[in-house]
Order: sequence, then C-alpha cells, then structure tokens
Amino acid sequence: MVDAEPEVVPAVESTADAIAAMEIRGAATIADAAAAALATQAEGSPAETPAAFRRGLRAAARTLYETRPTAVSLPNALRYVLRGADGDTVGELRASTIDRAESFRRDLEHARETLGGIGANRLRDGDVVLTHCHSTDALACVEAALEDGKALEAIVKETRPRKQGHITAAQLREWGVPVTLIVDGAARRYLDAADHVLVGADSIAADGSVINKIGTSGLAVTARERGVPVMVAAQTIKLHPDTLTGHTVAIETRDEREVLSDEERASIRSSDAPDGSAGEPGSEDGLTVENPAFDVTPPRYVDAIVTERGQFPPESIVTLMRELFGDTTDEPWAE
Amino acid sequence: MVDAEPEVVPAVESTADAIAAMEIRGAATIADAAAAALATQAEGSPAETPAAFRRGLRAAARTLYETRPTAVSLPNALRYVLRGADGDTVGELRASTIDRAESFRRDLEHARETLGGIGANRLRDGDVVLTHCHSTDALACVEAALEDGKALEAIVKETRPRKQGHITAAQLREWGVPVTLIVDGAARRYLDAADHVLVGADSIAADGSVINKIGTSGLAVTARERGVPVMVAAQTIKLHPDTLTGHTVAIETRDEREVLSDEERASIRSSDAPDGSAGEPGSEDGLTVENPAFDVTPPRYVDAIVTERGQFPPESIVTLMRELFGDTTDEPWAE
Amino acid sequence: MVDAEPEVVPAVESTADAIAAMEIRGAATIADAAAAALATQAEGSPAETPAAFRRGLRAAARTLYETRPTAVSLPNALRYVLRGADGDTVGELRASTIDRAESFRRDLEHARETLGGIGANRLRDGDVVLTHCHSTDALACVEAALEDGKALEAIVKETRPRKQGHITAAQLREWGVPVTLIVDGAARRYLDAADHVLVGADSIAADGSVINKIGTSGLAVTARERGVPVMVAAQTIKLHPDTLTGHTVAIETRDEREVLSDEERASIRSSDAPDGSAGEPGSEDGLTVENPAFDVTPPRYVDAIVTERGQFPPESIVTLMRELFGDTTDEPWAE
Amino acid sequence: MVDAEPEVVPAVESTADAIAAMEIRGAATIADAAAAALATQAEGSPAETPAAFRRGLRAAARTLYETRPTAVSLPNALRYVLRGADGDTVGELRASTIDRAESFRRDLEHARETLGGIGANRLRDGDVVLTHCHSTDALACVEAALEDGKALEAIVKETRPRKQGHITAAQLREWGVPVTLIVDGAARRYLDAADHVLVGADSIAADGSVINKIGTSGLAVTARERGVPVMVAAQTIKLHPDTLTGHTVAIETRDEREVLSDEERASIRSSDAPDGSAGEPGSEDGLTVENPAFDVTPPRYVDAIVTERGQFPPESIVTLMRELFGDTTDEPWAE
Amino acid sequence: MVDAEPEVVPAVESTADAIAAMEIRGAATIADAAAAALATQAEGSPAETPAAFRRGLRAAARTLYETRPTAVSLPNALRYVLRGADGDTVGELRASTIDRAESFRRDLEHARETLGGIGANRLRDGDVVLTHCHSTDALACVEAALEDGKALEAIVKETRPRKQGHITAAQLREWGVPVTLIVDGAARRYLDAADHVLVGADSIAADGSVINKIGTSGLAVTARERGVPVMVAAQTIKLHPDTLTGHTVAIETRDEREVLSDEERASIRSSDAPDGSAGEPGSEDGLTVENPAFDVTPPRYVDAIVTERGQFPPESIVTLMRELFGDTTDEPWAE
Amino acid sequence: MVDAEPEVVPAVESTADAIAAMEIRGAATIADAAAAALATQAEGSPAETPAAFRRGLRAAARTLYETRPTAVSLPNALRYVLRGADGDTVGELRASTIDRAESFRRDLEHARETLGGIGANRLRDGDVVLTHCHSTDALACVEAALEDGKALEAIVKETRPRKQGHITAAQLREWGVPVTLIVDGAARRYLDAADHVLVGADSIAADGSVINKIGTSGLAVTARERGVPVMVAAQTIKLHPDTLTGHTVAIETRDEREVLSDEERASIRSSDAPDGSAGEPGSEDGLTVENPAFDVTPPRYVDAIVTERGQFPPESIVTLMRELFGDTTDEPWAE
Repeated sequence: MVDAEPEVVPAVESTADAIAAMEIRGAATIADAAAAALATQAEGSPAETPAAFRRGLRAAARTLYETRPTAVSLPNALRYVLRGADGDTVGELRASTIDRAESFRRDLEHARETLGGIGANRLRDGDVVLTHCHSTDALACVEAALEDGKALEAIVKETRPRKQGHITAAQLREWGVPVTLIVDGAARRYLDAADHVLVGADSIAADGSVINKIGTSGLAVTARERGVPVMVAAQTIKLHPDTLTGHTVAIETRDEREVLSDEERASIRSSDAPDGSAGEPGSEDGLTVENPAFDVTPPRYVDAIVTERGQFPPESIVTLMRELFGDTTDEPWAE
Repeated sequence: MVDAEPEVVPAVESTADAIAAMEIRGAATIADAAAAALATQAEGSPAETPAAFRRGLRAAARTLYETRPTAVSLPNALRYVLRGADGDTVGELRASTIDRAESFRRDLEHARETLGGIGANRLRDGDVVLTHCHSTDALACVEAALEDGKALEAIVKETRPRKQGHITAAQLREWGVPVTLIVDGAARRYLDAADHVLVGADSIAADGSVINKIGTSGLAVTARERGVPVMVAAQTIKLHPDTLTGHTVAIETRDEREVLSDEERASIRSSDAPDGSAGEPGSEDGLTVENPAFDVTPPRYVDAIVTERGQFPPESIVTLMRELFGDTTDEPWAE
Repeated sequence: MVDAEPEVVPAVESTADAIAAMEIRGAATIADAAAAALATQAEGSPAETPAAFRRGLRAAARTLYETRPTAVSLPNALRYVLRGADGDTVGELRASTIDRAESFRRDLEHARETLGGIGANRLRDGDVVLTHCHSTDALACVEAALEDGKALEAIVKETRPRKQGHITAAQLREWGVPVTLIVDGAARRYLDAADHVLVGADSIAADGSVINKIGTSGLAVTARERGVPVMVAAQTIKLHPDTLTGHTVAIETRDEREVLSDEERASIRSSDAPDGSAGEPGSEDGLTVENPAFDVTPPRYVDAIVTERGQFPPESIVTLMRELFGDTTDEPWAE
Repeated sequence: MVDAEPEVVPAVESTADAIAAMEIRGAATIADAAAAALATQAEGSPAETPAAFRRGLRAAARTLYETRPTAVSLPNALRYVLRGADGDTVGELRASTIDRAESFRRDLEHARETLGGIGANRLRDGDVVLTHCHSTDALACVEAALEDGKALEAIVKETRPRKQGHITAAQLREWGVPVTLIVDGAARRYLDAADHVLVGADSIAADGSVINKIGTSGLAVTARERGVPVMVAAQTIKLHPDTLTGHTVAIETRDEREVLSDEERASIRSSDAPDGSAGEPGSEDGLTVENPAFDVTPPRYVDAIVTERGQFPPESIVTLMRELFGDTTDEPWAE
Repeated sequence: MVDAEPEVVPAVESTADAIAAMEIRGAATIADAAAAALATQAEGSPAETPAAFRRGLRAAARTLYETRPTAVSLPNALRYVLRGADGDTVGELRASTIDRAESFRRDLEHARETLGGIGANRLRDGDVVLTHCHSTDALACVEAALEDGKALEAIVKETRPRKQGHITAAQLREWGVPVTLIVDGAARRYLDAADHVLVGADSIAADGSVINKIGTSGLAVTARERGVPVMVAAQTIKLHPDTLTGHTVAIETRDEREVLSDEERASIRSSDAPDGSAGEPGSEDGLTVENPAFDVTPPRYVDAIVTERGQFPPESIVTLMRELFGDTTDEPWAE
Repeated sequence: MVDAEPEVVPAVESTADAIAAMEIRGAATIADAAAAALATQAEGSPAETPAAFRRGLRAAARTLYETRPTAVSLPNALRYVLRGADGDTVGELRASTIDRAESFRRDLEHARETLGGIGANRLRDGDVVLTHCHSTDALACVEAALEDGKALEAIVKETRPRKQGHITAAQLREWGVPVTLIVDGAARRYLDAADHVLVGADSIAADGSVINKIGTSGLAVTARERGVPVMVAAQTIKLHPDTLTGHTVAIETRDEREVLSDEERASIRSSDAPDGSAGEPGSEDGLTVENPAFDVTPPRYVDAIVTERGQFPPESIVTLMRELFGDTTDEPWAE
C-alpha cells in the first residue's frame, strides 16, 4: 500500500530521528522512547479501520527499528508493545496498545530496582562478591542487599583496557563497601575468597550464552573450577531477540589505542627488523592489536541470570524471551 | 668445631658479599657465582684432612646460602656441587668438587640454548603460541624454532600490572614474528586461534605446581577448557628444593601503585562517604589494592615442563629435582 | 479497607489454626487443606461485588499463608488456586475458584501415583537403583516399576544421622526388592554397580537447584564422575516459589545429638586440655557439632526431575513453576 | 640346596613366630622387627662364603615374608634391607646388611615425625583441615604445624561405620584444636570452609592410587569439585610393592554388624513379605550388608602424598617405590 | 459409546492403512498425511453435536495412532491438531480443526527451509563443520549458509556401519563444499580443525537427550573436550512426546551383517577352538555382533538444538514440546 | 679420526643392510638384531685402546642407527647397550658390552610374557575388556589372565579403516573368550558394560602421551567420561627416546584407499558440479581423504601403562625412559 507511510504520526518520526542522531541513547532510554512513540502513534493514528491502524503501528515500529537495527532493547520494546495490540475495533486496538506501552514503560522504570531486590536475595550477610567491569544491574543487587542490612565486601577486577572496575570500586566505596582491587590476571588467586562472581550482561542469547565485557568468559570458567557460583544481572531488555533465529551477536571491536598507546606502540616497534620486511600478516607493521569489547560465556558456566522477572538458569532464558517478545521468525513490523 | 669458619677462603666471602649486596643477581648469575665460589674454596682450601676439607666446603656453602636463603637457584647450585664432592683424599675431593662446579657452570651456560632447542621441537611450522608475561626461557624456545626454519605467530597478553607482554612483543617483532597483542581478559577468546600456551616459571615445586607471574593459573585453566596444551619453559635452577619438604613458595607482594596510581586512587576515594567512617577492614580507607607477583598453577593444567634436561610431565619433575639436588631433608651445608 | 478481615469465613480460620498448631502437617496435607479452605471461602463468601470477593479470597489466603510462611507447599496451593479465580461476576468467581481448588486437590491426590508411573518409565527391567534417605516420591517410582513387572535391585545408603535408609530398605524388602545396605561413605565404590541414583527432594529452587537430605549433593557429584545418571522424584508442590525471586532456601539445623550422643561427646571431651582454655571458637568446649538437615545440589549434577506433570531437566523446572504458580514478584495475597 | 634352611638363625624364627601369632603387629612394628631380624641373621650367620651368606639371608627373609604375605610393610622392610647387602666377602656383606637394617630402623623410628614436619609445611597459619577417619600420619602433620606455632581448625567427618572420626576429634581437642564434627554426608557442604582435605593411607599403589578408609575416594572427588586440595600422609612403608607388578590391593570386608546391628536388621526384616520368598539374591533374606574397609582413590584426585622422604605427586610415587624397594618382578627372597 | 467407531470417515481408514503398509513413510510424510486425514475427518464428520464431533476426531486419531505407535512424528501431528480443535459448535470445531491441520502442514512444508535458515545463522563465513551420518536437517543449515554467500568446508565422518557419510559427502560436493573424509575413529584428531560439530537427530527426549545415529554421543563428548560446540538440527516433529512421561526411546538394533559380513565372520570363526565348546555366552558361536542404530547424547554435551521454531538449549526443549504437543500424560485420542 | 669407520666389524654392516632392506623388521626383531650386532662388534673389535674400542662401538651404533632413524626400538636398543659399556680396559669394555647386549636380548625375549603377567594382575575374574585395534602386548595381558584361571569377556571395536579388531576377535575366540564386536562409533554405548579399556601403543612419549592406532584418544576421553579405566600395554622398547628432547612423534599417513575405495570415490564424485570448478582446496577434486595411522592420547586420560618393568602412571614413564636409555640430549653414537 503506497500511502502507508503517511500514517506514521510526526512524533514517531521525531523520536526516530533522535535515536538515529544518538540524542536518545542507552538501552533503557531507547526502549522507553520507542514504547512511548508507539503509544503516541496509537493515540494519534488517523486510521479508520483496524487494518489501517495495525498498518500504521507496524509502519511506526519499522521507522523506529530502522534507526538502529543492531540495538537490542529497541526491537524488544517494539515487539513487546506490538504483541499487546489486541482488539476488534480501532478503539480497542488503540486502548490496548497504549496500555501495553504504558505497562512496558512502568516495568522498565522499576526494572533495575526489582532486579536488584531479586539479586540481593541471593546474597547473604557477610558475603564477598567478585566483580568484573561496571554494571548498574549488578550493582543494583549489591545496593539492595546493603539496604536489606547485609554487610558485603567486594573484590573488584580493574577490567582492562578501560578499567571500568575503578567506577565499580568508587560506587562501592560510596556505599561503604570494603573493596579489594586486583588486576584481571589475579582473579583465580582471589576466587577462593569470594562467595559469588557477580557480573552484568551486554546481551543474552537464546542459547543461554551471556555476551558481556571481554574477560567475563575466562572468569566464569575459572570460577567454576574454583567452585564459586556465577550470577549474571540483566534486565529483560538485554535478551537478544535475533538470537532466537540463530543469529550470533556481533562483537564490537574498539579502538586499539585503548590497549596500546601510540607511545607504547612506538617503543615496541623500535625493536623491529630494520628493513621492516617481516611480519606483514595482520597489520602493516606486524604488530596487531585486537580490542574486542565483549566475549561470549556459554550457559554451562553461569549459575543464574537475575532479571526483573525473577532468576533463571541460563538454559531457560529462551522461554522468557519467547514469552515477552514472541517467537516468530518474521519481524512483526514487516510490511 | 669452633675454628671451622676460618677455613672459608676469602674469595667465597667476597662472592657472598656481592650476592648479599645484590651486585650479583638474577637466578643464573647467582647460581654461577655460587658454583664458582665453591670451586675456589676447593682450590684454596687449606684443609689437610678430608673431614676438614668437607667442613670447609660446607662452611663455604653455608656462608653463601645465608646471603639470600629464599632464592631458588642459590641452594640448587650449592646442593649440586656438594653432591659431587667425592673422594677418599683431599686431592680427590678437591678435584671432584672443582669438576662438579665446572660441569654445573658449563651446563648452566648452555642451559637456555639447550632448553630452547628442546622446546622448539614441540613447536611445528605454522604454529601460533599464546604467551603470558616475559620469559627468556620461553622465548628461547621460539628463537630455536625460528632458527629451525619454522614460521610462528604469537598472541601476546599484555600482562598487567607491569605489561611485560610489551617486552615479549618487542623481542618477537625483532625476530620478525607476527604479533597480536591483547589485554589479559581477552585470552579465552583468542585461545581458539592458539596451538600452544607458552610460559616461563618463577619456580617449580615438588608437587608439580608452577609458580609464575600472576595470571598464569587462570590462563592454564582456560587453556585446558579450550583444548590448548600448556608448555612451561624453565631451567632446572628454577626447581624449588624447599618444596621437597612441603614448604610452600612465598609469593612476593609488590607495590600497589603498579596496579593503582595515586591519581587513580584519589579519583576512587573521592566517592567515599564524607565521614570516611566506612570500610576500615583491610586498609585505612576501605580500598585495598592487592598486587601479588605470582600465582600457583596445579600440575593438572600443565602439559609439559621443558628444561635443559628434557621435557617432563609436571608430576615427574620431583624426580629430576631429587636426582640433581638430592632428597635429604637436612641442608647439606648444615654444620 | 478496614473491614476486610471479617470477610474471611470461619472455616478458613479453623484450618489456619490447625496448620499453625501443627495438627495439619506434611507438605501434601497442608496443601490440600489450604486449597479446601479457599474453596470454603469461595463458597461462603458474603461478598456482593467481584472486588469484595477477591478481597476476601486474598484475605483468606493471607490468613493461611501467615501460619507457616516458610513452608513450600502452602504458598503453592494458595498461588495455584488464586491464579484460577476468574470471572466478571461473583458467581463466576465463586465457581472458578471452587473448580480450581478441586482440580488442585484432585491432582494432588493422584500426584504421587502419576509421578511414580512417569519415574518408572525411566527404569528398565533389571536395573539397580542407588538411594539416599527415604522419599515416598522416589519409592513411588520403584513401586510403579515393580507393578509394571520390572525386576529391580537397590543399593541403599543408610543416610546418617537418622538412618532413614533403614526405612527405605524396609519398604523395598516388603516389596521383595533385593537390598544392599551400605554406609554413606561407600557410595562411590558401589556406584559402578548402579544404573540410577534415585532420590527425592525437600524442595526445588527456580535456579534448578535441588534441596534434599544432607549428602545428596556429594552423591550427585560422585555419580556424575562415575557416569551414573541422577533422577530426582518430586511433586510440583515441592517447587519453591520464593526462589523465583532469588530467595535462597533456609537450611534447617537439627539437634546435634542426632550426630553425637552425650556419651560420645563426653568421651571426646575427656581428651581436652585440663584447663579447658583452648578451643573456644565455635562452641563452649571447642567441639562443635553441625547437623544441617539438607544440602543443595546444583542442576548440572541432576539428569532429570520427575514430577506428576512429566519429567524435566532441572534447568527447565522454573518454567513449570511459573506456569503453575505464577511469576509475579508480589505475593498474590497481598492486600 | 636342601640344607639351606638350617642357615636361618633361631632369632629369626622367633620373630617370624611372633609376627605369625600377631604378637608383633602394626605396620611399623612389623617392619622394624623384620629389619632387626635380618640384622640378627647377618650377625649370626654361620656362612663361610658370600654365596652361603646370601642364601641364608634370603632364607631368613623368606621365613619372615611367609608369615603374613599380604602385609605391606613386611616385604618393604625385607626388600629394603636385602637391596643393601653388598660386598665381596662375608665380612663386607655382614657389615653392609647390618648397616642397612639399622638405617632402615632409624629412619622408621623418625618417619612419622619427619613426615609430620613435611606435611606441616603445607599448612598455613589459620588453615582449616577436613579429615576422614583416624590416621596417625595425618595427625602428625597437624601436630607439627601446631608446634610451629600455627593455629589450625578442623572439620572432622565421623567416618561410619566405626566412627574413628571421634578418635581424631579427641586427639585434636587434646591439642586444643577447635573441632567441628559432621556426618560423612555433610562433607560437600563444609568443603567450602576447608583449606585442605587431610587423610592417611592404608597403602599406596604403583599406579598412584591411594587405598584408604571407605569414603576417601568420594571425598576426594568432591574436594576436587569444590576446589580444595587433597593431601595424603603416608610413610613409605605403606607403598605397596606388589602393585608394581600390577597386583590390585585386596580390600578387606569387615563384619556387617558394624553397619547394621542385629536389632536394626530385625526391624528391617519385619517388613519382609511373610513367605520370605522374595529377594534371595545376595543373601539369605534379601538384605545384604556390604562393609568394605577401604576404597581406592585415583591419583588424579590427590594433590600430594606426603612421606618421610618428602612430598610427591601421586603419579611419581612409583619412582620412590622402585628406589627404595627395587623394581624386579621376582621376589628377592626367592630361592 | 459403542457406535463411536463408525464416525471415522473412510479416508482416515485409507490413510491409516497406507501408513501401516509403509506406503506412507518418512517422519515428515507420515506427519503430513496424519494431519491431512484429521482435516478430512473434520470435514466429513457426520456428527451433530460437539461431543460427537470430538469423539469422532479422537477415534480418527486413535485409528491413525495405532498404525505405528512407536513413530515419533505421527503422535506429534495428531496431538498438535487435536490441541487446536476448539469451539462451542460443530461448525466452530470443524473450522478450527481444519485450520489447525492446515497450519501444521504449512509449517511442516517449510520447516526444513526455516530450520536451515536459523541454523545457517550460527555458521560464519569460513567455518569448518564436522558432520556425522547423513541428516537432511543438518545439511539444510549448510545449504542456507551457502545461499547466504558464506564459504564453508566440511570434515565428514564416514559413519560405520552404513557409511552414510558418503551421502553427506556427495551432497556437499554437489554444492561445491570442500570435503575431508575421515574414519569415525579419527574425529578427535580433526576436531581441532573444526568450528562446529553439526548433526541431525532421530528424536529428542523431554530430558534434553538427543537420540541420533550411533557414534553421536562419543563425538559430542570429545567435541566438548576439544572445545568445539555441538549443534543439533531437528525439526519439531522429532520431539518425542512419550518421553514427557519418562519413557525411554527404544533403540533399534539392525542386521549384524551391516557390521560383519558372512565372509568376515567365517574368517574370525576359523580361529575358534576346534571343539567349539567355548564362548557360548551371548551367541551360538561366542561371537556376538551388536549393531544398535542409535545412541543417546546427554544434553550437557549439546550447545544448541536448531528447530524451525528457533534455536534452544537442549534443557529447554521440553518447554517447546509441551507448547506444541501438550503436557497431559493421557493420550488425547483415548476414548 | 678418519680411519674410524673400518673399525666396524663386517657382521654389523650385514645387520645394518638387512634392517635397511626391511629383511629385519618389527620393533622387537630390529631391537634384538641391533643389540646382537653390538655384541658382535664388541667381540670382534680390533681396538687396542679403550678409546678405540669405544670409537668403534659408537661407529657400529651409528651405522645401525642410520638405517632407520625414525624407528623407536632401534635407538632404544643401541642406547641401552652403549650405556652399559663400562670399564678401564678393552677387556672390561668388551665383557661389559657383551653382557649388556645379552641382558637386553634376554629381557626382550621375555618382555611380552612378563608384561602380560603384570597386566593380567590388573584384570579380575569376570571382567570385561574393551579393545581397540590389535596389539600383541594387550593380548598378552588377556592370555596371562586366562592362564591364571580368570574368565574374561571382550568387547572388540572393529577399528576402521583396516579392521584389525577382526584379528583381535579371532585371537580371543581362539582362546575361547566370548567376544562382542561393535563398530567404532558404538564404543560409548558399550563402555557401561566394560571394566577396562585395554589397548597397546605404537610408541610412548616423554610427556606421557600415548601414540596409538587412530581412535585411541577419542576412546580414552570417552572412557574417562564413563568412568572406565584405561590400561595401555607397551614394552619398554616402545618408549620414544627422541621425545625426551621435545620431539613430537611423526604420524604416518596411510593410503587413502584404505578409507575410500576407488568405487566409493567415483560414486561420491559423480555428485560434483559438472564444471568441476569448486572445491579445489585440499585436493584436485575437492574431496580429500585423510588417513592418519595414529593419534595422540594425553596422559591424563590413561590410568596405567603396563610394561615388562612394571606398571606406571603415564606421567612417570619418563623416569623409566631416562633410567633405561639415558637422558643426554646428544646421541650416544655421535662421533
């Protein structure tokens, strides 16, 4: 239908532009804006038939989706709202869509706090948590446990290359939690003193894999070897819908200067053979720096994924994904 | 015997002083000097009876030993030479001691090269080695393999906190080996591309444990999980004789500023509660930095220890220790 | 609403009193009584509006729940019935609630038998089962298999401290099953002769962990090492709803005299240093006896959980929990 | 040679009789007596040729060996002494044999203490050891550590059926060590609080297996799973020489009443079908009680075997066996 | 009701006969025919009441089911359609049944292609897959990946005894995929060169076990040890509904001549003792050949099951089974 | 010394020629001939000085060695004899060399039988052994156990591609052992019925790895997973001396037609794309057949190596290698 596009209300276009321009960013903020935009679409839809209403809703979702097709929370928000658009009349559809969007936003607003409360229940008074990188979801579990009156201590991995462990350490210190800071390589030595490994997630795949900051998978393997349970804190907007259909999660590669400064590189290069003939493979000067942002932890090394919907073994998270976001292989916003 | 001490020749005292003053340092250099000093003692001993000769030799050894009783190579050198002092006359004792000291020094001089040749035999043309920290013994294996005409590539872990991986990378680049540099946390992700994990050792214990730069044990556990064999290159002077009698190896703790600079600490501390009352346990300000230099890798995660005497499963290294340095629980230099 | 309490019918109060007084006890009996009480409440509710009816039902549930908030089967029964209270009129609500309560009670009545039939299907003619403690659910599987004409043998762990293995042995002998009785420590030696480890459960957590008689987790670890599958028989009333929200299951500690009689303690104490000054930590006389009733088996050591709703991998049991008892984090009986 | 037997001196016969009559018993006592008897034989031998001397010595050894051919320490003592009988004349042979026997007895006298000192070196101040059964060798390690000024705590498994854990607890309490007593099944739950599993050995096989009190192997498997190192304390007289030639160690079966008293059995039997027709296999009444005294722990679950000759990975103990007791497949006392 | 049988329309009987006579065979073909037959029943049902309609539908299902009660896809098709028969009038029931049957058949028609697309998403450009046996579902993943423009290589196990690997190799070669053919025993050696193990399934059990061609389970265990993920491609008609109730899957035993030809057997037998008296156990001549068609791979060795409904961890497949085919323990076609 | 070569006696040259011409072949036959040749050299050496005698002996060894430098038993024989050449005079050297050669040959003659007796001790009456390929050393263990009166049964893997399992089956049947023959892929399914995996070895490396018929390593991994011990029977002439210095054992690749007959290949090729353009990598027609004769089993999957010198954990075999054949990195026959 050629005139489908005009059915998208202007506010949706604005939101889409803002997402595309990165003015709206952050997984939760994007998801919230997308759900709000669909509610606006439902409210303002000029459609006179249910079919036209649905067409307009799909068009709106499509417009939003195409701004950042590789984000995780965006399609989740769209799928969640579209799944709730139900009714035989335009009025019913409008009401149900708005309702669904509002319920999504309301849940989202409280998700971190709810998740924190659930995760906190796994922590006992006096426990020591070992953390990797910086995750607001993981920290929410600690915060809720502290509010429950539990005393906790933390072993914080610095998390090269960007040392986000320092942010974690600062937050924990602000809460008065005793912190022991270690380099990443020291994790196995200190696992004997830890009761939990506690990390967040960038996204979670349908096969139960956890995609998180580089270093998580090695830590999880070692934690299993040392007998320490691994707990992943992740809101449901982190469940990666594309993985239901087997897609693997693309791992972002970041600037190699995070790993090796120009000065450090220069100092290494000075050792090269004078004629510079050797070592071409991989990079101009034989010295390649790889800086992947994330790695993939298989579900068998994770003991529980804590979400705002409860805790789950990683092998069951696919059930939650399908419940919340559907299991069709088609995109619900397809024309 | 009260007048035993004078029997130690002056050159031994000088060597002892130089070791104590750290003028002589480095495992091989100390071992070489100690063996040379015993030869000097044997040459210059004023003893007129075998018993007096032996007494002088033990006294010399004791003098040397006491300069740095926690070093590993020093007692190994002393034990090795003392075990070879054999004979029924002063002349025979003198000759055998000098012989033994010379053979020790000769072996030591070639140990790295011999070890490198043995280790190189484990590497095949086209292999990729993944390294941790900087080890001249490990690099000797690579060098020998390159000299054998094998092409190798390397994945080099930077090895926080001191980033000795940069030294390794520079050396490998000088030899024309293509290098991929990664942060320590990225090891598991890159193990799939590696054919060997290749590391050195600070020392090796009688129970087969490998004491090496912090991060080695986690790497070894992960390598086993990924199916990559772990090869440790270590000269026999690294075999820790005290561990025969159950002693554990003390792990040096280094300056915490290697892990966290004063600026970084200040930035974390600014988050602390204003009254500074929280978090006392472990350190004045609730933020402890732990910087152990080494960790302990159990033998079950190591596939082979390569020495200048051949390669060994780690569980068999105790046999080599006893063969070279004896198995008595008494110190051979005891009065 | 201040006058909500009077809406609870007297029969509910009586049931609550009986549960509180331990007159009604045992997981299944409590669950049955609670469901019956809710049906009574539905029948006798004086409510004139659906809202009042629901309020009364919640109040009744709350009254029941508060009698033993840490029981597992009680909240399950309440949640199950409340989830079925559906309708737009008081009449519809009343009917659906009664229906739901009856279906719960009917299922419960047959649950053990149904479970037994399902578990029996995993057992083949001639199999040997190794048991721990005494579980009527586990024995129901054996009974059903015997009724199917299968010959079975059993290796029965005595299960210190209370030797409930003797009860299991007696029951199996009554059915004519050849029994080999062993001490708990002998399990690994006899696992080679077993085709299944078969145990019950005190409760099952949302993360797939099995809480069962102390000794189960060590047995399960050893069974995996020996290649013997572990089968847990547990009715769905054992699924612990609090664990959906991360709560850990409190492990009851029992009287230490079950482990160490006063005579035995006296005999050990007589060895103490006369001044009695040593050994204060942990107990007055330096000798602490720990007697936890249960331990926690991680899901990775369990091959199947057999319920009356079918068999499940432990990692999927959370899905059944949410299906039967809901997934909200709020308590459905909250005001 | 028909008249070889008379060459055995009467004192050897007396010792043999005393061993056979169990007047001399206990691994160390038997070994000591056997070595002493061989020294007596060497002293009193009427032989006039080296061959006759050797023949007499072998005959004496044979006489002693045949008293208890399945003991472990007896053949070890004989083998050790015979291996040292060296010389070209009767005089030399006599002297060397006596020397060897004395050195054996001297070592034996100090073996437990020496072993204790070595094992103590593995224990750090503040460590918690988890013990199984009662072993004087294992306790010697604790005693030596206490003497070194280290504070230790102990978790003591009661060790059914005979509850030798009570003896261990009493000894530890006498030394002022805080003790936590648990049933055997509770071990996995308490391993998280332990730094070492510390056990003795009944004997050790050439393939590195440890034969020890029933329950040791399951404990070792679970300790590995929990990341706790396992330390076995065993004097070298426990090394089982027959296992060099592949012999397996026969596991003694003890009285079933240790496991099940007559009263307990009667109570179980009362449940049997009245006609008693079922359950014949295995025992008259369908109820078999198995009470093996020991089980076999594979070397891969043991971290170190501590002997008076030093500590060894279990995979290396065969080397020590061959060094001390020889590697021939023939018995050295064969005619 | 005695006259229920006549309500089955003749076309259902014909289909049942054709299935029984193996004219209709193959999992998908049988499922398709069964669903079509139920649609025919719905269309032609002479029933005048909803109850009679349902009775007829159950009878039709029963008729079909009984032709091959051990097939997997047949009851799945019947269950799926019966679950969709919904309505308050005969007209509604008829329409919903036909709809459901058509949707089943439509999904089935596209199932392999959809599955292939999902599985292809797990494969990256340049990957090497190692295959066992011949599976059209597994090959569909490869085909879809090739269509996506990805280059793949394959290591093909020949898969004794019938060498279906040759069929796989031929298909892959037809698509231009470079193939390396190996004997089954060579798998571990070549796993280091593989990025995925890719196999199909004969059926999948509710406990997550994968029943597939003999050799799959050993391959999966070895793949885990080598760090290679295992991917199972299986349409949902392979989910075995009987296993929900604990039934184990019967493993077909095939003709032993597939393993050992008569000539080969004769050649072995000629070695037998002339009197032929030995070796009776197991077979007449002491030489038994076992040729089971399938084995059982536990879920812990499988990384993902790819179906046309998405990919799942094996531990979650039970949820999909219950969603598609119901969870009642009764057969829905029971009278 | 230029005229060293003439010192080699003619009989050595003849033996060397016969080895080179493959007239003398088989590991034991070659070893025996080489030792005999060195004895001949010692006898016939025209040397007048010890140095000349040694030079001649080394020259003889070198002549023999160079005929088949990659054989394992040949250098072992030479090393063993050369290590025994001891003495200060030509006469002493001659006598000791001849003695040593004779002792080597005598041991070799009885090695299989002795080994069999040792291996038999690991087998109990009623045990079931699972075998791979055909090994006379492994079968010697079975034969000795049968001679000891033990009843054994065997599960025999056919061992593609050459089906040497048939030879094993025939031999076992000749001895009256009941045999169950299976394809290689069926091993995991039948391991539950086996008490031992029993295999031979092509050679054994200093790092404890076992090089044996392709399929051994996968079998060993699976046996560990199933809890079945793995026993390797190998005479000491199989210990690979080059591996002491890190050399890896070259794995022979055999004719691909053992795996795929020309007819089979033609049948697969007919599927190729008509233009034949695809699939070049690896072979002309895109179909590569790999047929390695052996694979490498890491020591951690082997429970015991049985030799004629006793049984050893694989991690200790290096000690035996060094004891028998020396540990120098130089070749003892070097000029």
